[in-house]
Amino acid sequence: MPLFTDLARSLPATVPFVGPEALERRMGLKFRARLGANESVFGPSPAVVEAMARAAHDSWAYGDPEQYDLKRAIAAHHGIEPENIAVGEGIDGLLGHLVHLATDPGDTVVTSLGAYPTFNYHVAGHGARLDFVPYRADDHEDLEALIERAKAVRPKLLYFANPDNPTGSWHDAAAVERLIDDIPEETILVLDEAYSDLAPEGSLPPIDLMRPNLLRFRTFSKAYGMAGVRVAYVVGEPGSVSQFDKVRNHFGVSRIAQAAAIAALADQAYLQNAIKQIAGAREELGAIARRANMTPLTSATNFVAIDCGGDGTYARELLAAVLTRGVFIRMPGVAPLDRMIRVSVGRPEDLALFEDALFGAIDEVGRPAG
Amino acid sequence: MPLFTDLARSLPATVPFVGPEALERRMGLKFRARLGANESVFGPSPAVVEAMARAAHDSWAYGDPEQYDLKRAIAAHHGIEPENIAVGEGIDGLLGHLVHLATDPGDTVVTSLGAYPTFNYHVAGHGARLDFVPYRADDHEDLEALIERAKAVRPKLLYFANPDNPTGSWHDAAAVERLIDDIPEETILVLDEAYSDLAPEGSLPPIDLMRPNLLRFRTFSKAYGMAGVRVAYVVGEPGSVSQFDKVRNHFGVSRIAQAAAIAALADQAYLQNAIKQIAGAREELGAIARRANMTPLTSATNFVAIDCGGDGTYARELLAAVLTRGVFIRMPGVAPLDRMIRVSVGRPEDLALFEDALFGAIDEVGRPAG
Repeated sequence: MPLFTDLARSLPATVPFVGPEALERRMGLKFRARLGANESVFGPSPAVVEAMARAAHDSWAYGDPEQYDLKRAIAAHHGIEPENIAVGEGIDGLLGHLVHLATDPGDTVVTSLGAYPTFNYHVAGHGARLDFVPYRADDHEDLEALIERAKAVRPKLLYFANPDNPTGSWHDAAAVERLIDDIPEETILVLDEAYSDLAPEGSLPPIDLMRPNLLRFRTFSKAYGMAGVRVAYVVGEPGSVSQFDKVRNHFGVSRIAQAAAIAALADQAYLQNAIKQIAGAREELGAIARRANMTPLTSATNFVAIDCGGDGTYARELLAAVLTRGVFIRMPGVAPLDRMIRVSVGRPEDLALFEDALFGAIDEVGRPAG
Repeated sequence: MPLFTDLARSLPATVPFVGPEALERRMGLKFRARLGANESVFGPSPAVVEAMARAAHDSWAYGDPEQYDLKRAIAAHHGIEPENIAVGEGIDGLLGHLVHLATDPGDTVVTSLGAYPTFNYHVAGHGARLDFVPYRADDHEDLEALIERAKAVRPKLLYFANPDNPTGSWHDAAAVERLIDDIPEETILVLDEAYSDLAPEGSLPPIDLMRPNLLRFRTFSKAYGMAGVRVAYVVGEPGSVSQFDKVRNHFGVSRIAQAAAIAALADQAYLQNAIKQIAGAREELGAIARRANMTPLTSATNFVAIDCGGDGTYARELLAAVLTRGVFIRMPGVAPLDRMIRVSVGRPEDLALFEDALFGAIDEVGRPAG
């Protein structure tokens, strides 16, 4: 008799993302710029760093498993109730719990082909079946096709990111609300809004638009600059978000993470400034791409996807050549998005390193054929 | 069609442990001593606090999902290989992953009646069936009965804590090795060694005793005083510990937690001193119990279970009366262990508050009948 389940033994040992530290070890170099994981090198507010240092002294004690103060702070920030919120160890952790709660082995889950690999990883980890809808030709998630597919296969979960990763594209609120209204009532819409703080005005449905089958995921990892802290939340109707209490790791959100998130919410001036810096860096990334005769996609996130003008093989070669020049970036894994590289925002010095590396890489691997 | 699975909807909304903060809110008081969660108020090493404050500055970046440096530090500490180690967000998080990996709904899992509630919570959360073996009359886990039961029902998992929570008791290494040797090969022994740093000499099997069906759980939450940081690990054969890579939240162990754990391992002098302080506080807790004409159980942990001399009803009344006096303690939930209260170690001032509260509580609720 095997020790682990058939499902566990069927799963690959691959991970959704290889970390930059792992790449450094394998390549035998240190990255001089870290622009691959959609982190924000602008960092958290100094008030957040201070709150974490203070909380470090108290970290002999477990954090509040009810995350009472943090939930109230989030609720106040959005003008909703604490009962509308579940907090977890990043969106990744919350997605894992949701797949656990909502799918049985063999159930169908719909997502876009090339969308968030970690969501797919959790779906596979629970034995559910992924059903993919291609992106539109203009590199947007295909809302109409997602709705159609959901009506046809009536999935347990439908994943949709707005703004989107890895393209940086977005839909307006009216379109997202159509998705919310048109999918089957028995399908949970997994609305990943990790980049919501960076979303253009008019692209987010009101936060108090609630449906039993709507769960919206927000994080402190992106605009708030706290990826390494691990704190995110889900917003929805109390009956749905309370399901997370049945399976979550109650003490998993550390004392430091809770203090940090509360401090971050309290410093909206810093957030607004970070959003400005991110927007500026995004512009500069676009300019770099154009100087390299490549096409930056318009982005509502903290990264820019750059269409390199060739196919996946070319983009992979170019990416490898950028990496060897000490600049960490990533790229979408699946065609046709894999004709792009994806570069996160950075400080001027980070972007200068990227530009050097990109031009050096183009010199090395040449221009795409055709 | 329901939004969540039959299993999810069947699960209670109760949590394994109510946090002291929640009790404070419900009772409308602030605890003056926090002695209920087996935390270590002696705290982490100052070097750990400093490492966390330093890491806070870098927490715009995700932590290393391979936890390379931390795994190497743990491996060096134990004289084993990094491939023998999986790291997670506390033992709780790792237990959840293990239940996910090793059980299908309806599978049987064996544990002691009154042992770790959070393990049971994860088993229930995955639809497996708990099979309970009573503690021995001397309040030790019943090794012989556990072995017998495992041979009879051939469970997927057998949970065993050494030293034990909530009794504080322990078995010697030879007895544990008999358990390891005698259970079915297809049963994974979940050897919870959260309190191993406090275990008497001769009670832990050598750490390099490896079996495919043996997983040993260690944590920085107890003797290292880092409960609020959320970092723990599992030790086992590479083929078994690598299973965790298939379902874990790869970025879940925060950058700060990884830095903290590395710093903690590097300061063994502080750990040894903490162990001495914990042992002293344990002695004092025993003396307090005896002064109250109650029976402290001999403990190899950072807490003392005190037999109040009555039944569960009496202990619950006494516990409530201690809580209202501003001292947070807990008690086992299941008979016959529920005749005890469980008090974590503390500084002299914490223990003095507990003694006052205990004597006041006895004055209030009286002595047990009989």
